[in-house]
Amino acid sequence: MATEKQSKLNLIDTDIHERVLYEDLLKYLDNPWKKYITDCRWIQEKHMPYVQPAIAGVDRADARIPDGRPAGSDLDFMREQLLDACGHEIGILTGALDPSPSSMHGWFEMAAALASAYNDWQIENWLERDERLYGSVHIAAGDPQVAVREIERIGSHPKMVQVLLPIDDFMWGDPYYHPIFEAAERNQLMIGMHHNEPPIYFGKWPRYFIEWHTLIPAAHMMQVTNMVFNGVFEKYPQLKLMMIEGGFTHVPHLMRKMDQQYKDLRHEVPWIKRMPSDIIKEHIRFTTQPLEELSKKEFLQLIDQMGTDELICFSTDYPHWDYDSPFEALPPNLDEGLKRKLFSDNARAFYPKLPQARKESV
Amino acid sequence: MATEKQSKLNLIDTDIHERVLYEDLLKYLDNPWKKYITDCRWIQEKHMPYVQPAIAGVDRADARIPDGRPAGSDLDFMREQLLDACGHEIGILTGALDPSPSSMHGWFEMAAALASAYNDWQIENWLERDERLYGSVHIAAGDPQVAVREIERIGSHPKMVQVLLPIDDFMWGDPYYHPIFEAAERNQLMIGMHHNEPPIYFGKWPRYFIEWHTLIPAAHMMQVTNMVFNGVFEKYPQLKLMMIEGGFTHVPHLMRKMDQQYKDLRHEVPWIKRMPSDIIKEHIRFTTQPLEELSKKEFLQLIDQMGTDELICFSTDYPHWDYDSPFEALPPNLDEGLKRKLFSDNARAFYPKLPQARKESV
Repeated sequence: MATEKQSKLNLIDTDIHERVLYEDLLKYLDNPWKKYITDCRWIQEKHMPYVQPAIAGVDRADARIPDGRPAGSDLDFMREQLLDACGHEIGILTGALDPSPSSMHGWFEMAAALASAYNDWQIENWLERDERLYGSVHIAAGDPQVAVREIERIGSHPKMVQVLLPIDDFMWGDPYYHPIFEAAERNQLMIGMHHNEPPIYFGKWPRYFIEWHTLIPAAHMMQVTNMVFNGVFEKYPQLKLMMIEGGFTHVPHLMRKMDQQYKDLRHEVPWIKRMPSDIIKEHIRFTTQPLEELSKKEFLQLIDQMGTDELICFSTDYPHWDYDSPFEALPPNLDEGLKRKLFSDNARAFYPKLPQARKESV
Repeated sequence: MATEKQSKLNLIDTDIHERVLYEDLLKYLDNPWKKYITDCRWIQEKHMPYVQPAIAGVDRADARIPDGRPAGSDLDFMREQLLDACGHEIGILTGALDPSPSSMHGWFEMAAALASAYNDWQIENWLERDERLYGSVHIAAGDPQVAVREIERIGSHPKMVQVLLPIDDFMWGDPYYHPIFEAAERNQLMIGMHHNEPPIYFGKWPRYFIEWHTLIPAAHMMQVTNMVFNGVFEKYPQLKLMMIEGGFTHVPHLMRKMDQQYKDLRHEVPWIKRMPSDIIKEHIRFTTQPLEELSKKEFLQLIDQMGTDELICFSTDYPHWDYDSPFEALPPNLDEGLKRKLFSDNARAFYPKLPQARKESV
C-alpha cells in the first residue's frame, strides 16, 4: 500500500516492460505461425553478443517471479513490487524485448502475426485486468500497409495510447513509413520509440554493451533529427513522439544544434517552417530513465537550456536492471510544482487518451 | 597585416583545409596510379546526393581564387585572406575533402599511392613554404600495415603534427586499426578525426545535408565512445585525439553519460581503469567550429559542466562555407585568460610537435 508521500506523486510511469513468453502467444496465433514456435522452436534472432549487465541478465534480480518465471511476466507480482509500492496512478506498458515484432528485419508476415497476438494478449491479460495500465500497439513496421491494418484493428481500444517503434536500424522519418504515422494520428495514438536491438553504428554493431548503452542518446538524436527534417510533423500536425529510455541530458545540445543548422541550411528543407526546437517543444517528449546522477543545480541548468520544463516525463523502466526509483532518481529538493510536471502533468498533457483529470490522492 | 588586437590572439587554428587538385598530385605519383587519373579520369567516388549548402558549394564564396581555382588551393591567397588577416601564429592543415585517401572504402593500393603523393605535395607546397603551417599525415587507413609504413616514412617530418582519420563509416577503436595508433604514438603524432563523407546511420545515408550536418556530434560521440571503451588509450598511453569540426556542446552530456555507464557496467571492460571523463580530459580535445551562437553565460555553463576549460581548441574551418571568424565566433567579453587558452594554449599543450614557446606579438 502506498504511503501518503507516495500517493501524492500521482505517478504516470511512461516505461514499464511487461514480459511476454512465447507460449503465452500460442492461443492468439493461427497456423502456420503457431507451428513455427511449437514445432520449429522458432525464436526471434537477435544480435547481442554481450555479457548481460547484471546478475539477473537485463532484469532486476529481485523482480524475478518467485516461481521462476522471468521478471515482468506476472501482473500480481508487478502490482505488489511496482504499482502499489510506488503509488502509480498510471503505468504505460512498452513491451518485452523479445519477441519484438517491429524489430524483425525480415519475415514481416510472421512479425505481423506476432504483433496481433501480442496486442490481444496484452489487452486481455494486462490492460483489462488493471485500470492503471495503458498499452502500446505492436506492429510489423517493416510492412507499413499491414501495420496500418493492425493499428486500425486495435488502436481504438481505450487503453492503447501509442504505437511502439524500436530504434534499432530503421530511419523512421523515411516516407516509406509515413502511413504508420497517418494511422497513428487518426487514432489519437502517440508514437513511442524505444531501443531494442543495438543500432548498426557506421555499419557495425557496437563492440560492447557499455558502448551501445552509452550511445543510446546518439541514436535518439538521429531519430529526432530524421523525423523533424523529413517533415513528419508538418505532414501530420497532431502527431506526437515519445522518445523512451534515452534520458534527456543530450536534448539541450540537440535543440541548439538543430536550430543553428536550420538557420544556415533551411533552404534545403523548405517544408520546415519553424525552428526545430519549436517543433520539438510541440511534438516530442523524452522519458527520464536512465537518469544520470545530477545535482539539483545541474538538473535545473539543463531544463533552463531547454527553455521549458515540459519536455521530460518520468519513467522507471521496470523491471530492468537499471530501473529508476521515483523516490531516488531525481535530485533532492526539487520544487513541488516541477516534480508534479515531471511525475505526472507533462505525460498527462501529452497522451490524449490518458484520463485528463488527476486522481485525488487516497 | 594583423592589427595589434589581432596579433595578440597568437591564434593556433586547428582546422584549415588546403585544397589539392588531382593534377597537383600527378608529379608525385608513379604509374599505374598516375594513368588512372590521366587516362581513366578517375576521381574518388562519393555518396553525397545533397544540394550544396551555399552559393559556392562547400566553400566561402569570397575564398575562390580570382583566377577561378577553388578555394584553399593557393597559398598566397590563403596568407592574405586568413593567416595575415587574422594574425595566425600557427595553422594546422587538415586536407581537402576530395581526394581523401583514408575515406576510400576499397582499392587501398590506390589510396596508399594517393596518400603518399598528397603528403609529399603538402610538405613541398605548404609546410616548407610558410613557417606558420603544420600538417596532417594522410594514410590509406583501410590497410593498417601500409598506413604504418607511410607514417614511418613521413611522420618524423618536423611540421607533421597528426595522422588524419575520417569519421565516415569506420569504427576506429577496432583492434584492426591499432597499429596505426602505435605508429602515431611512436612518432609523437596526434590522431585528428574529421568527417569527410556522411556516416551510414542505421544502415542508410542521411537523407539531407542538414540531417548529416546536425548529426556530426552524434558521430563524434560514437567515435569517442568506441575509442575509449576499446581501451585504445590504455594500450597507447601517450596517444592523443583531436576531434575536429564537431564543436563541443555535446561533450558535457557525453562525459556524464560515459561516467554513469562506466559506474554501472565497468565489469564488462575491465581494462578501463579510470572514469571515462578522466580519459577524455587527458587524451581528447575538441575543436570549436562550427560554434553555435552561445551567450557568455551559456558558454561558461558548458565549460563548467566539463569541469575544465582545457578541452576546447579554436578552429576556423577555412575556407568552408561555415567558417568561424576568431573575431566573431566566441561570445563577447570572455575573460582574457580563457581566450588565451581557447585560441592558443590548449592546442599548444596538446600537440607535442608545435613550438612550445609562445611567439611574442609583433
